[in-house]
Amino acid sequence: MLSGVGAPTMTAMSAFPGMARHPDRLLPAEPGVRVIARRLYESVRDLPIISPHGHVDAGLLADNLPFPDPAALFVTPDHYVTRLLHASGVALDDLGVGRGPLPRDESRQVWRRLCENLPAFRGTAVRYWLESELAEVFGVDERPSAKTADAIYDQVVACLAMDTFRPRALFERFGIEVLATTDDPCDDLAAHAALAADPSFTGRVLPAFRPDRYLESARPGWAAAVARLGEVAGVDTGSYRGWVAAMERRRAYFARHGATSTDHSHDDVSTEPLTAGEAERVYRAALAGSATPAQSVALRRHMLLEMARMSCDDGLVMMLHPSVRRGHHGPTLAAFGPDTGHDIPVRAEFTDALRPLLERFGTHPNLRLVLFTLDETTFSRELAPLAGFYPSVYLGAPWWFLDAPDAVLRFRAAVTETAGFTRTAGFIDDARAFCSIPVRHDMSRRLDSGFLARLVAEHRLDEDEAHEVVSDLVTGRPRVVFGL
Amino acid sequence: MLSGVGAPTMTAMSAFPGMARHPDRLLPAEPGVRVIARRLYESVRDLPIISPHGHVDAGLLADNLPFPDPAALFVTPDHYVTRLLHASGVALDDLGVGRGPLPRDESRQVWRRLCENLPAFRGTAVRYWLESELAEVFGVDERPSAKTADAIYDQVVACLAMDTFRPRALFERFGIEVLATTDDPCDDLAAHAALAADPSFTGRVLPAFRPDRYLESARPGWAAAVARLGEVAGVDTGSYRGWVAAMERRRAYFARHGATSTDHSHDDVSTEPLTAGEAERVYRAALAGSATPAQSVALRRHMLLEMARMSCDDGLVMMLHPSVRRGHHGPTLAAFGPDTGHDIPVRAEFTDALRPLLERFGTHPNLRLVLFTLDETTFSRELAPLAGFYPSVYLGAPWWFLDAPDAVLRFRAAVTETAGFTRTAGFIDDARAFCSIPVRHDMSRRLDSGFLARLVAEHRLDEDEAHEVVSDLVTGRPRVVFGL
Amino acid sequence: MLSGVGAPTMTAMSAFPGMARHPDRLLPAEPGVRVIARRLYESVRDLPIISPHGHVDAGLLADNLPFPDPAALFVTPDHYVTRLLHASGVALDDLGVGRGPLPRDESRQVWRRLCENLPAFRGTAVRYWLESELAEVFGVDERPSAKTADAIYDQVVACLAMDTFRPRALFERFGIEVLATTDDPCDDLAAHAALAADPSFTGRVLPAFRPDRYLESARPGWAAAVARLGEVAGVDTGSYRGWVAAMERRRAYFARHGATSTDHSHDDVSTEPLTAGEAERVYRAALAGSATPAQSVALRRHMLLEMARMSCDDGLVMMLHPSVRRGHHGPTLAAFGPDTGHDIPVRAEFTDALRPLLERFGTHPNLRLVLFTLDETTFSRELAPLAGFYPSVYLGAPWWFLDAPDAVLRFRAAVTETAGFTRTAGFIDDARAFCSIPVRHDMSRRLDSGFLARLVAEHRLDEDEAHEVVSDLVTGRPRVVFGL
Repeated sequence: MLSGVGAPTMTAMSAFPGMARHPDRLLPAEPGVRVIARRLYESVRDLPIISPHGHVDAGLLADNLPFPDPAALFVTPDHYVTRLLHASGVALDDLGVGRGPLPRDESRQVWRRLCENLPAFRGTAVRYWLESELAEVFGVDERPSAKTADAIYDQVVACLAMDTFRPRALFERFGIEVLATTDDPCDDLAAHAALAADPSFTGRVLPAFRPDRYLESARPGWAAAVARLGEVAGVDTGSYRGWVAAMERRRAYFARHGATSTDHSHDDVSTEPLTAGEAERVYRAALAGSATPAQSVALRRHMLLEMARMSCDDGLVMMLHPSVRRGHHGPTLAAFGPDTGHDIPVRAEFTDALRPLLERFGTHPNLRLVLFTLDETTFSRELAPLAGFYPSVYLGAPWWFLDAPDAVLRFRAAVTETAGFTRTAGFIDDARAFCSIPVRHDMSRRLDSGFLARLVAEHRLDEDEAHEVVSDLVTGRPRVVFGL
Repeated sequence: MLSGVGAPTMTAMSAFPGMARHPDRLLPAEPGVRVIARRLYESVRDLPIISPHGHVDAGLLADNLPFPDPAALFVTPDHYVTRLLHASGVALDDLGVGRGPLPRDESRQVWRRLCENLPAFRGTAVRYWLESELAEVFGVDERPSAKTADAIYDQVVACLAMDTFRPRALFERFGIEVLATTDDPCDDLAAHAALAADPSFTGRVLPAFRPDRYLESARPGWAAAVARLGEVAGVDTGSYRGWVAAMERRRAYFARHGATSTDHSHDDVSTEPLTAGEAERVYRAALAGSATPAQSVALRRHMLLEMARMSCDDGLVMMLHPSVRRGHHGPTLAAFGPDTGHDIPVRAEFTDALRPLLERFGTHPNLRLVLFTLDETTFSRELAPLAGFYPSVYLGAPWWFLDAPDAVLRFRAAVTETAGFTRTAGFIDDARAFCSIPVRHDMSRRLDSGFLARLVAEHRLDEDEAHEVVSDLVTGRPRVVFGL
Repeated sequence: MLSGVGAPTMTAMSAFPGMARHPDRLLPAEPGVRVIARRLYESVRDLPIISPHGHVDAGLLADNLPFPDPAALFVTPDHYVTRLLHASGVALDDLGVGRGPLPRDESRQVWRRLCENLPAFRGTAVRYWLESELAEVFGVDERPSAKTADAIYDQVVACLAMDTFRPRALFERFGIEVLATTDDPCDDLAAHAALAADPSFTGRVLPAFRPDRYLESARPGWAAAVARLGEVAGVDTGSYRGWVAAMERRRAYFARHGATSTDHSHDDVSTEPLTAGEAERVYRAALAGSATPAQSVALRRHMLLEMARMSCDDGLVMMLHPSVRRGHHGPTLAAFGPDTGHDIPVRAEFTDALRPLLERFGTHPNLRLVLFTLDETTFSRELAPLAGFYPSVYLGAPWWFLDAPDAVLRFRAAVTETAGFTRTAGFIDDARAFCSIPVRHDMSRRLDSGFLARLVAEHRLDEDEAHEVVSDLVTGRPRVVFGL
């Protein structure tokens, strides 16, 4: 995966003694199981990366400008990182959050704050990713600390100045075959079009349709947003029918630009139909500002059902990422904006919430519904049983807080016995940090290899089967599920 | 357990090279723990099977006809199997679901569909059971696949034609000591009586009292059902008092035919008393079709409490299997009937729901209440604390989706530290597929041996104690808890 | 930890062959991981005990009388023990529950009942603690059973008669540096003052402020309690303002006596502000007996928020132990009182419930909020994300039913990947049984060592880092979090 031009090779681990970039990292400790896991991992280590969902900006690759600096690359925009620094007593302001590009001195200062506070990250996935990126992408062979912060900063800066560390060069070196972005329905997808039209860039960068804010009629700015949607789509969104038509047109626009999926993240996944008349009435009330909160919720649930219907029609995969209380700390939200580390999960429920959708479309041949959760209790109780019956339902990879070694293994242990492997959607990195993409995929390959190795060692699966499974998880499932 | 006349012996594992019927299957991979686990397992491997709860039809043994064919034996009636085939894109119709006996050609076709799709079952308990049954009961030594499907089909057909593969012969070969069935309160239990009266059959086949539909007054057909109940019991069920008397009589009838338990599966386990007057009024309203949905639920909760009271009186063990949304996919339910793979669990709650019951009867010397769940969160939070105080409460074995290797180990890890082993009810196979009974019990013995071996290896239990525990789990607990 | 004067040394394990007091007990079975775990454990084994929360009576140490007898020491007052005996069919009355000091004959009888029923405790933490205490504190080298009960009883009695087994001697031998008790706001803390003033006692015994009953206005006796609170504080508690002032005064009194924390255990942790006028009105209605149940709950939620505000002002750490249904079995509660083994957990929720508190005070530099739960589902879903952002939030150690080997490892696995180690509060024994304190702390050190060893073996943490972490968990975190 990282064996591109100019990359430090992953097998030359002896070059990183202080960082414990051990070739067997994340594999099970028991020697007999580890030997099997190593064989499985080696069979998929160098397969291309397929990334059907993430948050990298297509403009990054279209413009292909050098990455600015280590703070911007590893700290400031990454709420996984700033979160735990904030908990450790570092003010978000001192990390440059919400302030755009930082002067070089301040960037170095921000980087130092991370390095000094690295002990707070011990045992977290963030720390694993960070060290892996530094070692494998930038050739750093020292553990970040107050003492090493400046030297590492300088080394990364030196790398970033090289053409081989520009986004497109890394894209190629990382072995990325497909990368999906996440985009607003009103986006003109110019960056995607530019990349597709550029003969010097051979990767696939696809948009994904993320219409959340157009479904949340109680939020400030909704009326203006749907008005703009109407303009962009060339449809009057003054009626619910117009809203539907505008959505359909923009989905078609996205599909023409290569999109294969939509993504939805609301407080819950309830899908409850309104009659055509009710939908129209509530929609207009919402536009007029006279809808009650309950009506707004009802409208969103109806709209989500409508989106599933559209997926049956146009074949776009429907991803659901529900049940997070966004912007939990109001004062931080006000000062620093969203995605600043205080989105906190709540209980999720799928069985009853999705029933109206699944009764209508659950066996539709065109529907593929990929379900994500931050509530692990739903893995064995709801998600695996649903994916184990409905041909449309796939289990998304462990997401966000759960995209970490032990959580990933809990996910596999919780769902496999009911739903097997084929009902899961393969690894999805959901990454914002571009350089974390290869290490996240590598982590996933290691963990799935370890999980399968245990099944082999316990004589629950033959090793030839495990080889087929791990390869299918890495490239087969995402290609099938996301139509790539 | 399988060492009966004519059976392939379980120790001759070298005869099944392609199937990995390894003698250490399901035991922990760590060699030191495995050695202990093996010793524990060997000490219980050949103990008789006690099956206090399942769904085998007593008529199967009374009639003792040959099993029809591999599709009927392994696929069509087994919603564990058809479920995942359906998710993999095979229509239920193409599996013969809901269509009675299949012509030989079609049966072979159904069997092929399973074999071709076996990769979808990798890592599931179903696949483990299937291979184990084929290997251990039918001597099949190849992994099912498109290529081997026909040969395996023919081999199983050839077996089924032999007298040694008729139900009673298998019953004996499997080493079944007691088998409980699940029966409607109106059932005349003729098959049970015939078996009991037959001097050539020495096994015990006992009925269990499953009155669910008589408690669900909002369901279609309830009024007719309770009318029929009245007829069978010789009591007028036009009043609630009559309903109670009819239930009591039928329970006594079941007890005279050997029953030691009742089984209840409703949306929840809430038990809330009505006054005598309210109960009577709501019951009559339900009969008249004028009860509200809320009243019907209230009536069911009162009736469940009444059932607990009856258990105190007549000593029948009360099993509760709550919190599954049955028939989640309406169109499939309409076309193929219930138990066709789309029952999906929901959250369960026991602490508050059972409080009225436990405050009344929780310390009654005659009550034994066995609690099952598909919501793993209740294991450590509610079920173990309840069973750790109330002498009447026992923890049922991991059920349905949770009757699988990793889930079983999670169950033991979740409950043992609070409730120990004696508050669990021993293994319960809940099987519909007759030939899966021995492999399910064998799986349970292996898993409990592995769990105990870890405690021994971690010096949390001495090995002599572990031997006592594993033996108690296999035969001691079920005999004590179910009065067998 | 146990290497005090006259104590059987912990390393002389060969002296306890029948008890399997193995030096590697509770460490992971895999030999490679165990070697690392042993090194980590040995580095913290002898560190002093810091106990920031528990239920030992300060008078025990102030009076320094000999412990009465084995039943009083190990059985009667310990609901962890009587609970499972009760479930096993032993009446609470036959264990002396609720009856004060027992005559010697009856005490011996109670002790025998425990020994006879020890198999019911196999695999539980209670059994581990019991055997550890007997072996390490009293030098007992036989497994308790019907056969050994009398001899062990006599051996413990003989020990208890010795001055070296009086509370203060054990306190010193156990290596306790700080011990916090749990006290009513009206307590005069005379015992604490006496200990502090006694030059012959060098340990620190600190009170903690537990005001639960003054917040539960719907409970019988509340009005009298707040009246008494007013008297003790010298403030008229006839108004809500008076209640607040009284609380503030008593907190200050506690702080002057060394308290560093408060503790709160209610049905939930909801914190919802009332206006000053509403609070006053509802409070007066509650005093007048005319508040509705909903108003009482609203008042409690407002009061809890007020308590958080006070913590910001006076710096007392706020502990929350929510979501247990206390006294689940009414008849037992009536006959034997509270804390008799039938407190049963229910679902917990933190994300929404604590939001009002955290929006107000979550980033206040003076607030430290330690959250405990009996609902494991909240570990990864809510608690780790909260502690991973809010600098005020710390994760309490696994509590009560979850303070057991497998549950502790599940806790670490569930929270570490999101919140690391520094956001956890270190071990908290919550002990009522004085002699269980050292074995509980020792258990925690073993388990954390084992958890860290696995991370090292999987190359997720370097061993030098693991050494820093385990030491920080044992003494660093509790000192920092509880200001000790």
